[in-house]
Amino acid sequence: MTSRTDKPISPGETSGPGEIQINVDRLWNDLLALSEIGRGERGVSRVAFSPADMEGRRWLLRRFEDAGIPARMDAYGNVFGRLQGARRDEAPRGEDEIILIGSHIDTVPEGGMFDGALGVLAGLECLRALRERGEALPYTVDVVAFSNEEGSRLGPGTFGSRALLEGISEAEWSRVCPVLKEAGLSAKDLEQPGPSLRPSAIRAYLELHIEQGGVLDASGEDIGVVQGIVCIQSFRAVFMGEPNHAGTTPMDCRKDALLGASELILAVPSVVREAGSERTVGTCGQIKVSPGGRNIIPGLSEISIEVRDLHEDVVSRVAHSLRRRATEIASSRGLKVELTPVSMTPGAIMSPEIQDIIEREARALGLSTRRMPSGAGHDAMIFGKKVPSGMIFVPSRGGISHSPCEWTSKEQCGKGAEVLFRTLIALASTRDSLSRPR
Amino acid sequence: MTSRTDKPISPGETSGPGEIQINVDRLWNDLLALSEIGRGERGVSRVAFSPADMEGRRWLLRRFEDAGIPARMDAYGNVFGRLQGARRDEAPRGEDEIILIGSHIDTVPEGGMFDGALGVLAGLECLRALRERGEALPYTVDVVAFSNEEGSRLGPGTFGSRALLEGISEAEWSRVCPVLKEAGLSAKDLEQPGPSLRPSAIRAYLELHIEQGGVLDASGEDIGVVQGIVCIQSFRAVFMGEPNHAGTTPMDCRKDALLGASELILAVPSVVREAGSERTVGTCGQIKVSPGGRNIIPGLSEISIEVRDLHEDVVSRVAHSLRRRATEIASSRGLKVELTPVSMTPGAIMSPEIQDIIEREARALGLSTRRMPSGAGHDAMIFGKKVPSGMIFVPSRGGISHSPCEWTSKEQCGKGAEVLFRTLIALASTRDSLSRPR
Repeated sequence: MTSRTDKPISPGETSGPGEIQINVDRLWNDLLALSEIGRGERGVSRVAFSPADMEGRRWLLRRFEDAGIPARMDAYGNVFGRLQGARRDEAPRGEDEIILIGSHIDTVPEGGMFDGALGVLAGLECLRALRERGEALPYTVDVVAFSNEEGSRLGPGTFGSRALLEGISEAEWSRVCPVLKEAGLSAKDLEQPGPSLRPSAIRAYLELHIEQGGVLDASGEDIGVVQGIVCIQSFRAVFMGEPNHAGTTPMDCRKDALLGASELILAVPSVVREAGSERTVGTCGQIKVSPGGRNIIPGLSEISIEVRDLHEDVVSRVAHSLRRRATEIASSRGLKVELTPVSMTPGAIMSPEIQDIIEREARALGLSTRRMPSGAGHDAMIFGKKVPSGMIFVPSRGGISHSPCEWTSKEQCGKGAEVLFRTLIALASTRDSLSRPR
Repeated sequence: MTSRTDKPISPGETSGPGEIQINVDRLWNDLLALSEIGRGERGVSRVAFSPADMEGRRWLLRRFEDAGIPARMDAYGNVFGRLQGARRDEAPRGEDEIILIGSHIDTVPEGGMFDGALGVLAGLECLRALRERGEALPYTVDVVAFSNEEGSRLGPGTFGSRALLEGISEAEWSRVCPVLKEAGLSAKDLEQPGPSLRPSAIRAYLELHIEQGGVLDASGEDIGVVQGIVCIQSFRAVFMGEPNHAGTTPMDCRKDALLGASELILAVPSVVREAGSERTVGTCGQIKVSPGGRNIIPGLSEISIEVRDLHEDVVSRVAHSLRRRATEIASSRGLKVELTPVSMTPGAIMSPEIQDIIEREARALGLSTRRMPSGAGHDAMIFGKKVPSGMIFVPSRGGISHSPCEWTSKEQCGKGAEVLFRTLIALASTRDSLSRPR
């Protein structure tokens, strides 16, 4: 899983020498400049479709254009910069033509300057570096800043990537459309989007992102090779007992719903350990009791439970064990319990071939790597279902994100962007087709 | 603790034959009539000083007067009915002269028809029965309906009894006074009350009440001989960990405050069992987590803990054990914990001599009895601190109270009232002075 090398490994066939080929200073300056847009006293706020978000998008269009890269914004707020590829005769026209580098520049309220922005600006830097080499790749390279990845103001997130690749349901569209219009997005284009990107046109999708967890930071590794985005099963457990007077009801006559809920909360880590994989996580983040008086025995207690793993079958196994455990707890305490599924967000497995390329290119640069799942959702989750996709993580200091304290050093950003650049070159340098999802 | 007799025991020296001497039908009709005042679709609402409560008080004044018993309402809403005693020469004038029978007729919102009302109306029935016997007792008997025992609208409760026996603080008075005026209580008398009842003038305080718990109902016993009102120690425990992303933080890197709180909640019953008495109770009725997102590991979790026992030293011992346990839990989980005392409500021990009399009189009627603490507060708690006091419980169906479902049968009400009547006679028939609290 982990490799650490002290001296650069000799570069592979498709990668250049073990030196940084992109301009790290230029990337870093872009990160700083974008972080000034929407900056407040507490962090950076470019909530999707807000004036600050739209200002950020217009700034990005200008950055592409300043570099001589044609750019455009679509009706959903997605910003594209394109470097046209040289024609290839091996594939039918329109098939397997584009390599997409994507991420987002919207933020949570009072967020940080790296989440999303790093991936987009590293993509921009890749295009600039390619242009400066003066030779076109066989494939067209599109760098995209998807809109509303965070979903903070208007859920669910990954709106821009879903609009392109999956289309948007009528119900969601009716909520989003007025917000788009208010943001000044071209009204005439605002028809409910069917998917407008053909997966078969896309050779591969790449995304660089900060880890948003503390694994790389704690281990000191440079590069996370993402194995996939975890799937998330979310449910609600409601224990029902009997509300009663806390003073007059003897301990052995109680049906205290909170005791049942507490026992299940405590069982989550052990059930995850026993029924899950090494990387499965389970969390109770919400709890309510009713009636909620300090002198009333809780008659009802409701908790949220969320289980995440790379593999849906592992998540199902853990959820099944939790369900059985909840029933045992309720029955031993004379309570009733109801477990209700709230949502199941499918994950996406990243292309094993692209994982191998990322790992090889990182090692060629002398960087240490770790294969790991992404516990958080990303635009790569949308693409990973239909297109061979790869995702690169760089460390997040203390694992902190969605916070003004988010931090990844200039050096670490540069290493990640260079791995992205070399992975792009490697993918463009071979005519081998990649195995496609499902 | 428990006695059950199938046939009447021969009456003691001071009690009459084992027959009901009060008029149970008249008592029951009073209960039904009073329950019509403030009755809504869901229960009886005579919240303290509301129009319905004041109407109930005026109705009670008339019921005393209809029976030829002089009655009055004081400036705090307390209603008194008095049967003057024959002079006694043994005690100095003004000392040891009065036997008080008290309870309340205010209710919680949407409450029942027995909580409080039974004690007052049984007192009224005792005075009527005494009058019909045509002979005065040596002691004056006052029946009092104290105001605002519940404290539902305007806390704290037991306002009327505290005003008479302890006086009211300036801060509380400034809150209550406008409400009293609004209720039409005589404005000229509305000065901040110092205590107006001298404890030494009161020979004894008696109160009949429904149990408000399910012990008697479950055991099938007729009469609870209350040993005392429990003292209540209330505190808040706050566990502090680290809020973090539920997807990206591995299980072994978490500092989940909710896990600490859950472990303490589960420890409460066992700590109560080990460090408490047979009758100690401990309850967590409130819980909060923060940030409170389903996908965020709780960084903070706050719970309420309440411990009740008849004896303050037992409560302190349990609280001390819980504090130690909380510290152990926090330290084993890498959390911090703060326990903050919220309140300590002292209880009151009921007079052992009066307990003996209640038990003897009940048994003389062939009733089964159980000595038990009162887990709920009552006006007897205020009197018990300064005056020899006795409290009689009758069963509450299913232990339910503060609810329209509150129920005690006519027969059970009658048994309780008869025991009250005989206890009154017994207390009035002896010149032995009772040992006084402290």
